[in-house]
Amino acid sequence: MSTEAPAVWTRKHLLGLHELSADEIRFILDTADSFKEVSTRSVKKVPALRGRVVVNAFWEDSTRTRTSFQLAAQRLSADTIDFSEKTSSVSKGETLIDTARNIEAMGIDVIVIRHPAAGAAQLLSRTVNCSIVNAGDGAHEHPTQGLLDLYTIRERFGRIEGLKVAIVGDIANSRVARSNLFALTKLGAEVILVGPPTLLPRSFEQLGARVTHDFDSVIGELDVVNMLRVQFERIKTSQFPTVREFTSMYGLTWDRFQRCKRDVFVMHPGPMNRGIEIQSDIADGSQSGILQQVTNGLAVRMAVLYLVTQATSGSDGQR
Amino acid sequence: MSTEAPAVWTRKHLLGLHELSADEIRFILDTADSFKEVSTRSVKKVPALRGRVVVNAFWEDSTRTRTSFQLAAQRLSADTIDFSEKTSSVSKGETLIDTARNIEAMGIDVIVIRHPAAGAAQLLSRTVNCSIVNAGDGAHEHPTQGLLDLYTIRERFGRIEGLKVAIVGDIANSRVARSNLFALTKLGAEVILVGPPTLLPRSFEQLGARVTHDFDSVIGELDVVNMLRVQFERIKTSQFPTVREFTSMYGLTWDRFQRCKRDVFVMHPGPMNRGIEIQSDIADGSQSGILQQVTNGLAVRMAVLYLVTQATSGSDGQR
Amino acid sequence: MSTEAPAVWTRKHLLGLHELSADEIRFILDTADSFKEVSTRSVKKVPALRGRVVVNAFWEDSTRTRTSFQLAAQRLSADTIDFSEKTSSVSKGETLIDTARNIEAMGIDVIVIRHPAAGAAQLLSRTVNCSIVNAGDGAHEHPTQGLLDLYTIRERFGRIEGLKVAIVGDIANSRVARSNLFALTKLGAEVILVGPPTLLPRSFEQLGARVTHDFDSVIGELDVVNMLRVQFERIKTSQFPTVREFTSMYGLTWDRFQRCKRDVFVMHPGPMNRGIEIQSDIADGSQSGILQQVTNGLAVRMAVLYLVTQATSGSDGQR
Repeated sequence: MSTEAPAVWTRKHLLGLHELSADEIRFILDTADSFKEVSTRSVKKVPALRGRVVVNAFWEDSTRTRTSFQLAAQRLSADTIDFSEKTSSVSKGETLIDTARNIEAMGIDVIVIRHPAAGAAQLLSRTVNCSIVNAGDGAHEHPTQGLLDLYTIRERFGRIEGLKVAIVGDIANSRVARSNLFALTKLGAEVILVGPPTLLPRSFEQLGARVTHDFDSVIGELDVVNMLRVQFERIKTSQFPTVREFTSMYGLTWDRFQRCKRDVFVMHPGPMNRGIEIQSDIADGSQSGILQQVTNGLAVRMAVLYLVTQATSGSDGQR
Repeated sequence: MSTEAPAVWTRKHLLGLHELSADEIRFILDTADSFKEVSTRSVKKVPALRGRVVVNAFWEDSTRTRTSFQLAAQRLSADTIDFSEKTSSVSKGETLIDTARNIEAMGIDVIVIRHPAAGAAQLLSRTVNCSIVNAGDGAHEHPTQGLLDLYTIRERFGRIEGLKVAIVGDIANSRVARSNLFALTKLGAEVILVGPPTLLPRSFEQLGARVTHDFDSVIGELDVVNMLRVQFERIKTSQFPTVREFTSMYGLTWDRFQRCKRDVFVMHPGPMNRGIEIQSDIADGSQSGILQQVTNGLAVRMAVLYLVTQATSGSDGQR
Repeated sequence: MSTEAPAVWTRKHLLGLHELSADEIRFILDTADSFKEVSTRSVKKVPALRGRVVVNAFWEDSTRTRTSFQLAAQRLSADTIDFSEKTSSVSKGETLIDTARNIEAMGIDVIVIRHPAAGAAQLLSRTVNCSIVNAGDGAHEHPTQGLLDLYTIRERFGRIEGLKVAIVGDIANSRVARSNLFALTKLGAEVILVGPPTLLPRSFEQLGARVTHDFDSVIGELDVVNMLRVQFERIKTSQFPTVREFTSMYGLTWDRFQRCKRDVFVMHPGPMNRGIEIQSDIADGSQSGILQQVTNGLAVRMAVLYLVTQATSGSDGQR
């Protein structure tokens, strides 16, 4: 770790990976290391957040992420509350803030928020005094997914620096792609974004990524292939002709897999469309890190919940 | 406190404020005082109800009240269960009782019930042996809301007696108005009900309130203004012409606010329709107690859950 | 208990009662005995599963069973997670396995599963390493309901052997009937299945039951009458003419009840259709064990959750 490594954590919120330094990202991953061990015990609990309250406020469905955060909070001995509210007739921004202020007034320590609007987590962090953890805001960021992906890559290769990581699929609409891109480039990986022109604008090059529309042209040089879920419900038919054509051009098929490096590492944020963006056998094979991602998500979220509640007082999350 | 003050709490249920004595109400508020401090600790927990089970049985949606009760129970170290059941095809009364008996047979200590039918909580209290706490039954009562409102007023002014408190809006359909009215008059406040004739029948005078349809005629003499939520979904168009007209006649506008006493205290049970029954700036201003109400709701509900489970045995909730 | 009684529990899963030996069933009932006492304490908690996680994964609604399992887990000091996922567009089998693997990867100890497909629990037990408890799979089995019924009968009569037990109603679609039948016959009771020919095929005789379509012909010889819920939503009109006719032929009416043995024991898995399969007064009378069934359900589920997590390592649930 560099000499800039933070001695203490100062951020009260986790809003995105874009604003974190490389050292801060490493600090979270190192903290997750010490929590990962907890999940292997038969008594999977530490008293770190006893008497604290973590609220899951999800304005979008996500059983997996919500469950992961709830388990992470329970493993830290925090109390958890599930708070879901239908969007009301008044303007959403106003309702969101009032709802958050109400939650905070009940003496909550952390709000984990998922919201369809990009910037929702940041908006809250400016309005309330408790910690805000972004669990996905529109197409903006999904920082804990980015962190667990990095954690899993580092666990596999022992490093991030110098690796070639492809993120494949619907990049334009993917907060997972953005959070991964920000964090991976900061830690010295080369990120290659792969997808059809309609779902991957050239402008992503300005964020530090290589962009290609030809999966096959890069397949042989990759250390990590991170396959995004095809979100049928979001992709318009004008953006892609057929599922079959998507699979043939951008799916991780058996044929493509065989042209990968021998130790290529295959990832997917889940839930998978088996047979569409990823061949079923590959997902279940020895090169796949998909279930490790899920396991590591717990450790990373424990680390994040722990750190934001322990942030040195007075910090507003800005440096 | 008067010499009649109860030395011990004897009620196993909290069904409404109508049947409580002034001393009993004060006893709950005093108990809430001692619990309020718990919520300011970093470890927000006391072991008072460890191993006890509190069930939230809500037949009407209410994320805020349900969350507040759940947090209150957790802060007392109770286990909590959320029990919601769609009304079945058989007669509702029968289902309600069978459901409650089933819950009770699982060894539950407290059922917190919200139900669209007035009297539902009382019906249950006669059928089951565990404690029943009414979290709102039709247009009848919402006693913990009444208690938290009184607590917040007492905290602000140091007393209830002699204050002039206006409750404004759709009084006829409001269980909040009724619970406030019962408790405030018992503790010596003067209650002025304000609303349009279609939503505020003269018969409320028989309950001990002053009734007026002219908000402006009383605006200058009030110590507390408690603005009810306009429940668009319940009010029929025959009862009120337009939202705009409601605001102009019964909303707490900036103009009206400036004609209030300098230290007027503004309250609202939430969630607010900003710009309709209350001007947004007033809700967020220094005279507003709206977020204190939410905070105090926790302390009051902790007190209620604690007291009903500690009631001297043998009591049936009647004196 | 016979000399074959197991010294230790070896099954990691509870999938059905069909595959259990009589001694194993007795072992669960005896374990439940020791847990039943816990529910009578004011602090209803033992630390047996502290730091363990029990996930309720229900693909069918069932507030009662889910609540019972959640309470049982809490009473053992386990953490609980409620995991419900809408069936996705991909084939259900695949989604089910992927979902279960994801849950398991989060470090879960037990998955309690209810699923509309017969065999779902068994399928999972072959795919994941955590314990699987079947909370109802299609028309196949509902083993904890069978166990709590046996527990309640044994509590009443001091034995199972030699009793005549009728199960009445829609047998063909009932997993409750099947689990009861398997366990009761193993423990030496005589099971008489009663129902209309369309809902009770003769083939049930091959499972060891007496089959009759004439309730009145057996009413006088029964020790136990277990009335199944009429599931209007499942029964096709071609299978039965009218509700009125069902009641007159297969309902436990007052007239029929008076022709029962003096100490007949009346049971129902709930929720009841009062006045249809069972007369309301009988359900609430002194011969009824319906609420004891609910109470005992907690003790039995505590025993099951405890045993499957303590199973001697290496066992795959097969003997």
